[in-house]
Amino acid sequence: MARRKIQIGLAGLGNVGMGVYANLSKNAALLSQRCQADLDITRIAVRDASKARNRAVPADLLTESWQDLIDDDAIDVVVELIGGVDQAKTLVTAALRRKKVVVTGNKALLAEHGQEIFSLAQEMEVPVYFEAAVAGGIPIIKAVQESLVGNAIRMISGIINGTCNYILTKMREEGWSYQEALKEAQALGYAEADPTLDVNGWDAGHKAVLLASLASGRWVAADQIHVEGVEDIRLGDLRFVETLGYAVKLLAVIRCADDEPMEVRVQPCLVPKSHLLASVNGVFNAVMVEGDLVGETLFYGSGAGQDPTSSSVIADIVDAAVGLQHEEKRGYVPSSELAAVKPIADTISQYYLRLHVDNRPGVLAHIAQITARHDIGIMSVIQPESTGETADLVLMLDHAPFGSVQQALAEIRELESTSDDMTLLRMESFEESP
Amino acid sequence: MARRKIQIGLAGLGNVGMGVYANLSKNAALLSQRCQADLDITRIAVRDASKARNRAVPADLLTESWQDLIDDDAIDVVVELIGGVDQAKTLVTAALRRKKVVVTGNKALLAEHGQEIFSLAQEMEVPVYFEAAVAGGIPIIKAVQESLVGNAIRMISGIINGTCNYILTKMREEGWSYQEALKEAQALGYAEADPTLDVNGWDAGHKAVLLASLASGRWVAADQIHVEGVEDIRLGDLRFVETLGYAVKLLAVIRCADDEPMEVRVQPCLVPKSHLLASVNGVFNAVMVEGDLVGETLFYGSGAGQDPTSSSVIADIVDAAVGLQHEEKRGYVPSSELAAVKPIADTISQYYLRLHVDNRPGVLAHIAQITARHDIGIMSVIQPESTGETADLVLMLDHAPFGSVQQALAEIRELESTSDDMTLLRMESFEESP
Repeated sequence: MARRKIQIGLAGLGNVGMGVYANLSKNAALLSQRCQADLDITRIAVRDASKARNRAVPADLLTESWQDLIDDDAIDVVVELIGGVDQAKTLVTAALRRKKVVVTGNKALLAEHGQEIFSLAQEMEVPVYFEAAVAGGIPIIKAVQESLVGNAIRMISGIINGTCNYILTKMREEGWSYQEALKEAQALGYAEADPTLDVNGWDAGHKAVLLASLASGRWVAADQIHVEGVEDIRLGDLRFVETLGYAVKLLAVIRCADDEPMEVRVQPCLVPKSHLLASVNGVFNAVMVEGDLVGETLFYGSGAGQDPTSSSVIADIVDAAVGLQHEEKRGYVPSSELAAVKPIADTISQYYLRLHVDNRPGVLAHIAQITARHDIGIMSVIQPESTGETADLVLMLDHAPFGSVQQALAEIRELESTSDDMTLLRMESFEESP
Repeated sequence: MARRKIQIGLAGLGNVGMGVYANLSKNAALLSQRCQADLDITRIAVRDASKARNRAVPADLLTESWQDLIDDDAIDVVVELIGGVDQAKTLVTAALRRKKVVVTGNKALLAEHGQEIFSLAQEMEVPVYFEAAVAGGIPIIKAVQESLVGNAIRMISGIINGTCNYILTKMREEGWSYQEALKEAQALGYAEADPTLDVNGWDAGHKAVLLASLASGRWVAADQIHVEGVEDIRLGDLRFVETLGYAVKLLAVIRCADDEPMEVRVQPCLVPKSHLLASVNGVFNAVMVEGDLVGETLFYGSGAGQDPTSSSVIADIVDAAVGLQHEEKRGYVPSSELAAVKPIADTISQYYLRLHVDNRPGVLAHIAQITARHDIGIMSVIQPESTGETADLVLMLDHAPFGSVQQALAEIRELESTSDDMTLLRMESFEESP
């Protein structure tokens, strides 16, 4: 088959966009051997063409209007790396309407409008590739869409926000406060100037929506999932949890069972130190996928960064090029139906509950009465330190619905002997729900 | 596009073959949603059609002649799971000559004849898929061929034989001897009745040839690589190594540098306990891949077994089906040229050397003179126990070529004060060669 030239319109020349531009050129010889097409960046849309960049880009490639990418009939593939939701959506839908293949790393866009975008893509018979939208350089999308295609996916459980993982790692290793760790993450460029979506869990939440949708085969509505971040994590809890043999990780947890609504949530969780996920530190990401045939698998790598993320975008561009040569659409996508998501109150696990209570007899009895009333078993009670009039009190709670635990907690909070300073963390066993 | 029926001829109904047959049926509904083709096993070639099987297979599917699969023009895909080399080669080349797509899990076949088979496949313009040939259910072939296509692969380092990893894990955890651990592995069905290829390292060696060939883009000749197994590992060494902060793993190590012959070897190695690979226990496999863009990635899962391996075979069948619908060939394969492989003597690392020596002054001086003459630095000397007239002596040797260390070792073996009981293990830093 004759080599075809694939013309690429790149929208966005920020961190990842520049990585894609530079690395397509750096590894051009290798890509030329491996891919039976020539990959050519024909046009680059940027906000400000006159802006100084740390790498020279020929001026005639640049345009300040992304509409130029859409209007250019020679452009086969539009790579959307502008971020944000509204403008990106306009760009992506315009590209699909002109039957251009779309490559995007935009998790927020797909989590919020994936159903609509993939319906349009199906109608126009062009594919949308989005490997870079989840876990940076880790090829988790292709793994689920293609490599594990023969499996019913039972569970996905992953560390998919590098900023939060960096913060939790540094708090534990260096004894930094949450604020100190966040500041360092920003200084190192791991967190955005506005890190809200990272630390409140919603960056991971958007990624969880995409993974859950692939796992279930139906779109998961972003407003149906439960998301917590790391803002309220206390250094004291991290340390105490460690003495118990656990690490705290911000986990996206997805469980699918037959004929039951699925579980999709992002929460800080206790992970046994012996588990591989507990060894994933700093800005690294890892995603565990459990399929009915393959059993337990784990995919580990850089969850962000210019070069790793460009590795995923370039793989998508090569897939797009192969597809264009053969008029082929790869990888199943969720159907346009919505998946049923279990209310977070009904999800079950064990829990770590740290309270701060008056240091006197009878307090535990009150608390135990409340948990018993809500049918929550106590596996163990630990009092880390008990000097002074008040003391921390840690309860390890047995499997119970999150809703029951929250109700019990509301009552415990009302006790005179208990202060508002408390931490509730789930414990992840990575086993089937009981 | 209309759904197409893909007709599959399955050769071999052993452990993996039966898994493929059973699981294609078990997950048929799911595959029908995810794949725009109907996958139909049309014919199954077995050695003995009358043999009792633990799952009913319609008698009219069975034939005792694999030639029937080749001769049936309706069959689009031949899945080779008969194992062995000679007959498998005849079958695979016959299928390719009839322009049938081939799916195989046969690492020995591809490691020994991959160059010839892929040349024929290219000539006939049909693809060969082989995900199940390396690391069971872990999708490492697709990861390297497709997901990391934009990367120059710098290093691959992996635990890719589950039997050896089980043996090393059990020796360390349970204090079993090598023979006890091997016997248990056989009883549990992890090792073959004839476990030679597992324990002598060549099962991992064949897989290393495939990974190295993909990494370099040229075929690596199996007789050019260095392979050691686990047969000579002593329980005492495993225990002592553990006190030093390491685990012993049988690693396949592949390093590629620009303009230099590549390094391809399978050897038991010391891995720092803090490294993810050190936590991969039992029959699990894990492969670390380092690309110039993506950095360090790791892929973990079941390296063998009926269901996990069938997961990979089914993914290949789906790829074959998509390809057949679009006349498309996925994934780059090595060119027909041979890669240059570095002689094992020139490969460099640090080493753990355990000697058994006379327990008297002057012995260390003699040994140190020898290592100095071969320009090998000693990082530390440790004497685990020194009761009696003889004692173990452990030297941690600094970076040196394997050849120099072997020469020094030959001289040390000649010393009167040293016995033949010695263990040399490489230490893997997972960093670039110095």
